Amino acid sequence: MKLNCDLGESYGAWQMGQDDQVMPLIDMANVACGFHAADPMVIRETLALAARYQVDIGAHPSYHDLPGFGRRSIKHTPEEIEALLLYQLGALEGMCRREGLALTYVKPHGALNNDMMRDRSTLEAVMRATRLFRQDLALMIPVTLNYREHQQMASQIGIPLLLEAFADRAYDDDGQLVSRRQAGAVHESPDLIVRQAVSFADKGGVFSATGTWLELPADSLCVHGDNAAALSAIRAIRQTLGKPG
Amino acid sequence: MKLNCDLGESYGAWQMGQDDQVMPLIDMANVACGFHAADPMVIRETLALAARYQVDIGAHPSYHDLPGFGRRSIKHTPEEIEALLLYQLGALEGMCRREGLALTYVKPHGALNNDMMRDRSTLEAVMRATRLFRQDLALMIPVTLNYREHQQMASQIGIPLLLEAFADRAYDDDGQLVSRRQAGAVHESPDLIVRQAVSFADKGGVFSATGTWLELPADSLCVHGDNAAALSAIRAIRQTLGKPG
Amino acid sequence: MKLNCDLGESYGAWQMGQDDQVMPLIDMANVACGFHAADPMVIRETLALAARYQVDIGAHPSYHDLPGFGRRSIKHTPEEIEALLLYQLGALEGMCRREGLALTYVKPHGALNNDMMRDRSTLEAVMRATRLFRQDLALMIPVTLNYREHQQMASQIGIPLLLEAFADRAYDDDGQLVSRRQAGAVHESPDLIVRQAVSFADKGGVFSATGTWLELPADSLCVHGDNAAALSAIRAIRQTLGKPG
Amino acid sequence: MKLNCDLGESYGAWQMGQDDQVMPLIDMANVACGFHAADPMVIRETLALAARYQVDIGAHPSYHDLPGFGRRSIKHTPEEIEALLLYQLGALEGMCRREGLALTYVKPHGALNNDMMRDRSTLEAVMRATRLFRQDLALMIPVTLNYREHQQMASQIGIPLLLEAFADRAYDDDGQLVSRRQAGAVHESPDLIVRQAVSFADKGGVFSATGTWLELPADSLCVHGDNAAALSAIRAIRQTLGKPG
Repeated sequence: MKLNCDLGESYGAWQMGQDDQVMPLIDMANVACGFHAADPMVIRETLALAARYQVDIGAHPSYHDLPGFGRRSIKHTPEEIEALLLYQLGALEGMCRREGLALTYVKPHGALNNDMMRDRSTLEAVMRATRLFRQDLALMIPVTLNYREHQQMASQIGIPLLLEAFADRAYDDDGQLVSRRQAGAVHESPDLIVRQAVSFADKGGVFSATGTWLELPADSLCVHGDNAAALSAIRAIRQTLGKPG
Repeated sequence: MKLNCDLGESYGAWQMGQDDQVMPLIDMANVACGFHAADPMVIRETLALAARYQVDIGAHPSYHDLPGFGRRSIKHTPEEIEALLLYQLGALEGMCRREGLALTYVKPHGALNNDMMRDRSTLEAVMRATRLFRQDLALMIPVTLNYREHQQMASQIGIPLLLEAFADRAYDDDGQLVSRRQAGAVHESPDLIVRQAVSFADKGGVFSATGTWLELPADSLCVHGDNAAALSAIRAIRQTLGKPG
Repeated sequence: MKLNCDLGESYGAWQMGQDDQVMPLIDMANVACGFHAADPMVIRETLALAARYQVDIGAHPSYHDLPGFGRRSIKHTPEEIEALLLYQLGALEGMCRREGLALTYVKPHGALNNDMMRDRSTLEAVMRATRLFRQDLALMIPVTLNYREHQQMASQIGIPLLLEAFADRAYDDDGQLVSRRQAGAVHESPDLIVRQAVSFADKGGVFSATGTWLELPADSLCVHGDNAAALSAIRAIRQTLGKPG
Repeated sequence: MKLNCDLGESYGAWQMGQDDQVMPLIDMANVACGFHAADPMVIRETLALAARYQVDIGAHPSYHDLPGFGRRSIKHTPEEIEALLLYQLGALEGMCRREGLALTYVKPHGALNNDMMRDRSTLEAVMRATRLFRQDLALMIPVTLNYREHQQMASQIGIPLLLEAFADRAYDDDGQLVSRRQAGAVHESPDLIVRQAVSFADKGGVFSATGTWLELPADSLCVHGDNAAALSAIRAIRQTLGKPG
């Protein structure tokens, strides 16, 4: 079970995250591409850090919205989605060349991620862009109860699909994350976080907040590195699950 | 003698140029990369047009300055220049994948172009970024009386160098373009433009505004397509010089 | 019946519209504030032109979306709407000081305009911002069959309300503009445009596309100046209606 | 002797500074206007905080350069400088209206500040914009040995001038700040900082790094609030100098 984390989200004079502490703990870095965060120098430093710790590089593309950090939905045609993605994937792969690295996957950010999980034509556009970019580039999306349908779409378009889950978030009976506005949406207890990580890793699913079993087979767990507690949680997950082969 | 032109300089709702009329007349398209002009959809359309007319694709990277159209010098370290270029070259090559195209050269835009011709460390950074991006990617720079020094720098860094000249601009005795603020800087007469194009093509140089012979061996002529007169000039040059083999 | 037009929509090196030809023909200029179009120099020139022809200055604020020209809805809280508006109204009034001018009204642009006509809390936020900015500043909104409700809201918040209509657009039976995607949405015939202008001016309403009478009392007609036909239409309306007292 | 500090320099999701801790300690807040930092919501919160502690509001305008935080010189004509300033002053005063506040002074930021102190036509443009904005709006500039010349310029243009000095920076024999690249440029010792503050307050000047007396009459000291040591220094200065009448 690989651990992925959003990184490289500083911008100009503004720092965000503590990438130097998170990078040694994870397997896959979702690197901002300049549309919701990161400028070319931030990307350069993030990639150099990923190279040092031999972390896989994923593109973390977004709607073009720096003031909103890519968290606001902006309506686009499928052609525009394709163009937005090819631009950002290319930009990141261009910067990888300095390090002799290459992208291994794409994980859309924020509102783009939410929109593609709700709207089939957006998800298809994201898949097409991934396929157009490179034959063996994978797309990472949240695992839901519809994962078989997503796998089928990916298979038809011809891209590898990676499914991610969250160890620190409660799931509802529909296999969706409980909204952050509801109590109990985010697990604070390290024990609970580790147990949920183990459940994803060993059982291929988790129990929902109300006790319903959810089959959610995940390839990767999304972790956060914003603060000391988050870093501890990553270390605890890693210690329990071990380093992936 | 190939003809190159700056294209793809619209942005969002704002149109610039008449790319559909110019593209059939040229050999090399310098495509804006989003930092001084162009958004992903503009790039997509420009590349589709270039593909239709089998025009070579060059990246036209710039300082990040949409309100100033990349015409204002902004101080950067060599590392920043490298990062700016790799990002933009990558973005453009990412978008090329939809058309099955690839970049063949890089021609810096505006203030970045001026700064690199004045400052050796900036030019070296541009050359390094070109080399890091891809071994066979060429850099196109204005031909000056120092062209041998530039060829030597390119050779040491390991990139092909293309030299460009202007058929419609007067040169001073130092082999520099006469400033647009001076009378006679821009040739209006189609005859004069064609004569200067022929001189570059057949004699490997031109006479300066004061009558001094300048050895300026050019691989390509930069043309403009902003208005009807400019389009006529391109057609006249093409008719006289013929289509390059 | 006053004529208003969106102006000052150039940006940096990109020109839009033909403001110098439109300005002499209109009474009210809706001036872009830098969030969907215009930079400080474009605003300066637009205001100077408005001053020369003694045209009323209206702010034309927008969501912050240059690449989308303010045409894409972006979700905001009412507090954010208020802040967006106060910032843009202030910026424009700041620039007015050089000309000894002052804003007389506000007319939201594009997606912000659409959203406020659909969502009461957005419209209230726009009204509150207008009121906070200055007691006698008017808000201009499209006249609809709900105009009395809008007048009541404006009265409660304490701002003057101006209602605008379109001479060149067909209305449906609900008093909304027929979508541009439908045939007959935009009147091409100068006669028809002038007749609709006269109907708004003299009868306080128009017939819908299907022949239903719509009571739509308008203070101002929105005109466009993009091309020769549009300019002719403005001149024809003006000639028929006369200059407002 | 009033204390001023740069505040409101967050942007979107990115936090900068600790404004809530600094605001109670200072007399004058230099508020970013959206061109190097701050968006409308950041400005709104900064002004609300300033209102709570009855701190004077100064505009802190900049070149338009978010990725460079306004620290990079960008060439402008005097007309452009004027327009940049009127836009930003207006935007900030627009936002002040919600709090019933008004701007009392202008203090240019970063590269614009450096450029105006080196280039008379830039300083004149800044002064003209200040005057155009409002008759009683003051301009705050660094005090140098040329302060009489600056006072004369301000007097001719008709604006109040405020001179600021730094308690934590060494001055060279020309009355300029010692470059941060040199050792001893920034005072670390709280004692030294307080002594320099007292010297500005009571003696109207300081000794340079090499022991030369510099007559530098300051109206305000610029303080920083980035970290715990900086906050301590502000408290120590305030305790020694007392609250200004």
